[in-house]
Amino acid sequence: MNFRTDLALERRDLYKKANDIANEVDGLETQEEKIGEDIQITRVKVLNENGEQAIGKKKGNYITIDVKNLKIAGEEEIQRASEAVTKELKTLLAQLIGEKDDILVVGLGNLYVTPDALGPKVIQDIDITRHIINYMPEVLDQDTRPVSAVSPGVLGTTGIETLEILKGIVDNIHPKLLIVIDALASRSIERISSTVQIADTGIVPGAGVGNQRKELTIDTLGVPVIAIGVPTVVEAATIAADSLDLFIQKLQQDAHSNDFLNQLQEEDKYQMIKEVLVPEEYNFIVTPKEIDDLIENMSSVVARGINYATQK
Amino acid sequence: MNFRTDLALERRDLYKKANDIANEVDGLETQEEKIGEDIQITRVKVLNENGEQAIGKKKGNYITIDVKNLKIAGEEEIQRASEAVTKELKTLLAQLIGEKDDILVVGLGNLYVTPDALGPKVIQDIDITRHIINYMPEVLDQDTRPVSAVSPGVLGTTGIETLEILKGIVDNIHPKLLIVIDALASRSIERISSTVQIADTGIVPGAGVGNQRKELTIDTLGVPVIAIGVPTVVEAATIAADSLDLFIQKLQQDAHSNDFLNQLQEEDKYQMIKEVLVPEEYNFIVTPKEIDDLIENMSSVVARGINYATQK
Amino acid sequence: MNFRTDLALERRDLYKKANDIANEVDGLETQEEKIGEDIQITRVKVLNENGEQAIGKKKGNYITIDVKNLKIAGEEEIQRASEAVTKELKTLLAQLIGEKDDILVVGLGNLYVTPDALGPKVIQDIDITRHIINYMPEVLDQDTRPVSAVSPGVLGTTGIETLEILKGIVDNIHPKLLIVIDALASRSIERISSTVQIADTGIVPGAGVGNQRKELTIDTLGVPVIAIGVPTVVEAATIAADSLDLFIQKLQQDAHSNDFLNQLQEEDKYQMIKEVLVPEEYNFIVTPKEIDDLIENMSSVVARGINYATQK
Amino acid sequence: MNFRTDLALERRDLYKKANDIANEVDGLETQEEKIGEDIQITRVKVLNENGEQAIGKKKGNYITIDVKNLKIAGEEEIQRASEAVTKELKTLLAQLIGEKDDILVVGLGNLYVTPDALGPKVIQDIDITRHIINYMPEVLDQDTRPVSAVSPGVLGTTGIETLEILKGIVDNIHPKLLIVIDALASRSIERISSTVQIADTGIVPGAGVGNQRKELTIDTLGVPVIAIGVPTVVEAATIAADSLDLFIQKLQQDAHSNDFLNQLQEEDKYQMIKEVLVPEEYNFIVTPKEIDDLIENMSSVVARGINYATQK
Repeated sequence: MNFRTDLALERRDLYKKANDIANEVDGLETQEEKIGEDIQITRVKVLNENGEQAIGKKKGNYITIDVKNLKIAGEEEIQRASEAVTKELKTLLAQLIGEKDDILVVGLGNLYVTPDALGPKVIQDIDITRHIINYMPEVLDQDTRPVSAVSPGVLGTTGIETLEILKGIVDNIHPKLLIVIDALASRSIERISSTVQIADTGIVPGAGVGNQRKELTIDTLGVPVIAIGVPTVVEAATIAADSLDLFIQKLQQDAHSNDFLNQLQEEDKYQMIKEVLVPEEYNFIVTPKEIDDLIENMSSVVARGINYATQK
Repeated sequence: MNFRTDLALERRDLYKKANDIANEVDGLETQEEKIGEDIQITRVKVLNENGEQAIGKKKGNYITIDVKNLKIAGEEEIQRASEAVTKELKTLLAQLIGEKDDILVVGLGNLYVTPDALGPKVIQDIDITRHIINYMPEVLDQDTRPVSAVSPGVLGTTGIETLEILKGIVDNIHPKLLIVIDALASRSIERISSTVQIADTGIVPGAGVGNQRKELTIDTLGVPVIAIGVPTVVEAATIAADSLDLFIQKLQQDAHSNDFLNQLQEEDKYQMIKEVLVPEEYNFIVTPKEIDDLIENMSSVVARGINYATQK
Repeated sequence: MNFRTDLALERRDLYKKANDIANEVDGLETQEEKIGEDIQITRVKVLNENGEQAIGKKKGNYITIDVKNLKIAGEEEIQRASEAVTKELKTLLAQLIGEKDDILVVGLGNLYVTPDALGPKVIQDIDITRHIINYMPEVLDQDTRPVSAVSPGVLGTTGIETLEILKGIVDNIHPKLLIVIDALASRSIERISSTVQIADTGIVPGAGVGNQRKELTIDTLGVPVIAIGVPTVVEAATIAADSLDLFIQKLQQDAHSNDFLNQLQEEDKYQMIKEVLVPEEYNFIVTPKEIDDLIENMSSVVARGINYATQK
Repeated sequence: MNFRTDLALERRDLYKKANDIANEVDGLETQEEKIGEDIQITRVKVLNENGEQAIGKKKGNYITIDVKNLKIAGEEEIQRASEAVTKELKTLLAQLIGEKDDILVVGLGNLYVTPDALGPKVIQDIDITRHIINYMPEVLDQDTRPVSAVSPGVLGTTGIETLEILKGIVDNIHPKLLIVIDALASRSIERISSTVQIADTGIVPGAGVGNQRKELTIDTLGVPVIAIGVPTVVEAATIAADSLDLFIQKLQQDAHSNDFLNQLQEEDKYQMIKEVLVPEEYNFIVTPKEIDDLIENMSSVVARGINYATQK
């Protein structure tokens, strides 16, 4: 099954729809929580191989935080959203490492491509302590956790696989855990830069845009990897398929129903549309025109979320 | 007729299709020219009221320069495209003002919103001479034309209508002509930041994104206004409608033809899709994910085009 | 007397020293206030022609706010400093215009030259209300004051005198008062980006760097002009002269005293050093290497100070 | 001897002056070349331990390229200067590695601190080939050299020593040589961003600003390191000391000569002035106010210089 999304939550919903499952998928466990008006948290747990096969995601935790109207969010909404990130992140950290264990934060992406700049922008705002603990420990609380941070760049501008760069750094400075931030492709334009997914199973950079790189996981790096992913782009074919769904619904409501439409309604239009668009070089990857503000607000949410979670 | 495009060329094509016109529209005159492999020039002239009513554009010249693959253009392609802009601009200038007459170049848009930053970015690269002629004339050739340039900002960040700002400046410094650069909405995602339209009839800022401001024309400013427009964004509904067109064609070719599809084929899907998307808050305005590079290259094309055209 | 500073406070001190005045200069009135550890406010009032002639500043109020350690200031210090700006600005505004009278905020300077970018950066953060009052008054409190803002650019990049641009805008939109923000040259490197001067007498852009433009005052613009100036650069000759003063003091303490040094001590070394440096093309204008952070923090201080002062 | 400069050329001159050496220093060899009006090349070779002890620099080649008026340089001057860099770099590369050997280019510094942004800015413009050779070799000439590039950030923003990051990367991707770009402190404000030093002996980051980090050399990294250094900042004490030198000269010419001045003339004022300025917290590190343009032009010079040198 081609899910075209990195969000476990969206994959679960697609799997349920495709297989006509009313309740929970076997091998998954899902919890929902609402915080105030604007924040919705969904925690999907992949329990075993059944769950892994259903949604194509490794055993582990996938937490989605949806924030409404982030584009026009003020200081208060950003703070509330970052607190939600902190809370979820703290729970995962407590399960994986000790309170003073060394963390390396990694911002994937390209600072000069606006929809791909989230990772490097978050890194600018991370509170770094590792060098102070090494060189001037007296200015910090005794129980400060060492935190360091890098923006390794992207293959296209460095010529080096991200894994090669990170493997080298991890082998030299021996952090106990990595937090890796990346911009994702989403299946839904509404989620663009208004959703954060936190997963304790690592990340495959570029997967969402069909430009897959080597995975960054405990298997390749030797330490646990928490991935923080934020959708920032969407394919034209996705927009068209979603629009077509809404359009057919409307036609049917307006009594234009016919066998052909009914049959079309059942199918996944994405693949069909993609086959039409690709030869015309029309399957652009797009981002909302407000992407600068969205990235700005979302990097505040993620950076603060990490800063509060890594220190007490 | 709702054309959803500021490009006279696209309007003419839509009008011809809607009215089943094989040759030229009455009241228009069109010329095409190809320069090398990658550049296509189309000159649409609105001759009289017939033409004005057909495509909803004032009497005057509308020149479209399409540049293929601008996203990955190198120095040479950018130079060639800028030479095409220079040539067209020179012809218009020669018809409107004298060789040494004062020109004010205006970059509309918001520097901090990537797809809207074209105007201010072009202004950075304009060769300014007005102040040198005033204060140190001896360092310039005697026949240098006075050129000045401003980026007035946008209503949302200044609180002032662009017309109010420009009217004030024009009344104070008395240029003989304005060249106004603006980012447009396009009907076609392929044209995004790969097309320049030059018109000698002025501009209505924001028209393409349904956020219409007061017009900048000889009527409101008292001097001729040449508008240089570059499409940088497109509506989700446009993408969906275009994709649906391609999709239905494909279905019909695959012998899925039926009366309903045939009928659908005839209609303009844009309006129908927009009606579906708007209530769902799904009619996003989007831009390609490579918009940073596109804007960079296109502002080089436009700035050089203007610099060579305004000086000999 | 060549004061080489735009700060009325520094001019007063220089005048007192040069004329051996122990108490207050005739025609001036000075008040000092300390807020917490880090903020010092000095209010110099030029009362009459005597005062005008003494320090070469027009009759009016000149308020200097010195903020210690702004380079490494955190959120709290920035907030405290901005509150000091708000309080002084509110007092001046209440003397000049009514509570709902229209204000235009003007950010002088060049966004692309770091030490000259303060004005345009402040403008980005000003809360604009004028267009909302015009187009959607229902979303604002009834007693919201109309505020608009522009960054007119600098002569070198526009080719137009700032006064010509502002005169045009003022004549078209009729604000009741202007607040003009500019980066200044300082006499003292310690004051760089850690001092704000607020004056109710307008401004002469570029005066501090010997690149004087037409004045922006009630005389030229027809409405009162409050100037907010922040020192961001200093001449090499100033650094050398100040260092030489300290150096000679040290020599004298170390018993190297001799008639020549004693005599040198009395004189103003700046002019002598400048005469030496200029022919060598050595009189650079410099800025601290941390200027990016200094400008960042200072524009937060000024923008917030204005935002709280213009609205209730 | 405290040279306060990373430029071998300046150290040689200081050593000669301090030791009253008329010709060449024992253990050094120096060559000069002038290219056109604006470019001066000086090649200092440290031949043996005598030379090493004299100027405190390792055995090897130190090439200084001085470019006049880089601040206002046009396209032509930048091209000429970059060709000088290419020529010198090519000679060093040919002595150290084979024509197709893998090179890693490293841009030290902090992108967000203008005078420290040179390294990261150069990296943006380096032609990267390593990944293309790995993934799409068919699009390149067969004899293309693999080039990769990273901007590792600075200790203050990553929490990690640059050496730790680079050691990890070098051990993983095994380049045959590193080219490391860094901004330096200069002894002379005239050299700021108008001088390039190329050395085949590696680099000690931060040495010039008294903030010394672990050295990046063949000893620590296992492969040869070519350092490209560009002065971008200068201490206030340096400006003061140089100004004082000029000032005393002037006083002596004007017949103010006396024993004290004569004696002062002989001494190195820098150390004395520094002792005066430091306790007053007055020994700022400064940069010219035009630093943005200087960095822009110098990074074009260096990036082009490297691009032409690494490929045929």
